[in-house]
Amino acid sequence: MEKGQLLYEGKAKRLYATEDEQILYVAYKDSATAFNGEKKAEIAGKGVLNNSITSLLFDKLAEAGIASHFVEKISEHEQLVKKVEIIPIELVVRNIAAGSLAKRLGFEEGTELARPIVEFYYKDDDLGDPMITTEHIEILNIATKQEVEALYTKGLEVNDVLRPFFKEIGVILVDFKLEFGRDLNGDVLLADEISPDTCRLWDEETKQHLDKDVFRRGLGDLTEVYEIILNRLGGHSK
Amino acid sequence: MEKGQLLYEGKAKRLYATEDEQILYVAYKDSATAFNGEKKAEIAGKGVLNNSITSLLFDKLAEAGIASHFVEKISEHEQLVKKVEIIPIELVVRNIAAGSLAKRLGFEEGTELARPIVEFYYKDDDLGDPMITTEHIEILNIATKQEVEALYTKGLEVNDVLRPFFKEIGVILVDFKLEFGRDLNGDVLLADEISPDTCRLWDEETKQHLDKDVFRRGLGDLTEVYEIILNRLGGHSK
Repeated sequence: MEKGQLLYEGKAKRLYATEDEQILYVAYKDSATAFNGEKKAEIAGKGVLNNSITSLLFDKLAEAGIASHFVEKISEHEQLVKKVEIIPIELVVRNIAAGSLAKRLGFEEGTELARPIVEFYYKDDDLGDPMITTEHIEILNIATKQEVEALYTKGLEVNDVLRPFFKEIGVILVDFKLEFGRDLNGDVLLADEISPDTCRLWDEETKQHLDKDVFRRGLGDLTEVYEIILNRLGGHSK
Repeated sequence: MEKGQLLYEGKAKRLYATEDEQILYVAYKDSATAFNGEKKAEIAGKGVLNNSITSLLFDKLAEAGIASHFVEKISEHEQLVKKVEIIPIELVVRNIAAGSLAKRLGFEEGTELARPIVEFYYKDDDLGDPMITTEHIEILNIATKQEVEALYTKGLEVNDVLRPFFKEIGVILVDFKLEFGRDLNGDVLLADEISPDTCRLWDEETKQHLDKDVFRRGLGDLTEVYEIILNRLGGHSK
């Protein structure tokens, strides 16, 4: 599969065309960003780690019957994915209060929620990705009711697979962000990435942050903790 | 009915006990506040106007079969209400994009929404009354599912009565905030006030702001526009 024209450059990945118009080529960058791009850095090795971790997790989800856009990992930095039209809604699934939820609603960070919850955010950098409700989605006309139901259900399904999977390797899945797209049939398909960039992952014993909060909050070396996750997942790092 | 002990002082009203433990005495203050109390002023006449307007609107809703805590207006500044336990959720019903909705989601102010929507806010001054979803309400454990459904339904019912009522007097009901309480039977009852402090009201022809945005945005004399509303509603001002 040849890497064709650059189609899109995001904060963490570049998307390229391939000779198959249904398949895209994703290259993971070493860039780290936080707070809607206000904090930035280049961190050697990050792209390799997130490419490996995402590939492993999408494979794990596929085994559990949850389809995604992921096709295969083809190099250290790169993977092939099915082409989808990204729905401009970020789904956040939360098991434990942390980050913006803890701050906004006054929960102590680390409090287990009475149940996993799903939040929707409008994927719009200019607006700072504001939280939205299903009624906002209706008036913005960015997804159908059926799509929103599919997002919600799939969000909780992913949680039902990943939460126990992380628990097996001594990691608490605190919360995570998902993105979805419409495939060529118009069906909703899990897309983007699942990595320590998009999940909050805490060591079960020490509560050490094994995710991007290390970068957001300046708690230490990002690649060191991403490598812990990759190693525990059974992947190989450097 | 005698005015007893001061039970609670809010930004715009004082609540007193009466000799009937099921009835409270509400005194409307002349204070205006905005932006979670950051902007403040004393505006002579405001309390009288809001007491009159709220009394008229609760009567109008009662005629349409929507019960509230309102019992009767007993003086220029004062009314009697049924005692309720306020549910710490502010409901915002929106017909037209304005204020925080326009800013957060990128709608041009004045855009008619595809449908009236209901938003929930967590009534907590320390947290700045954050927007919440029905799932946040569950994890905060501040209202039951049945109560949330009742709030939602009642919010739209109030809109269905007030929107055409304001239209008859040449006023667009852009959006409004409602609060509810639990009465002694545990039933959800409309409470607080409905006034230009809690509604966005625009003149249908000129689009003049006839509400607290005049104060928030420094657009002119607050009592002048509140008097326009009271007069059009058929009430008597000074």
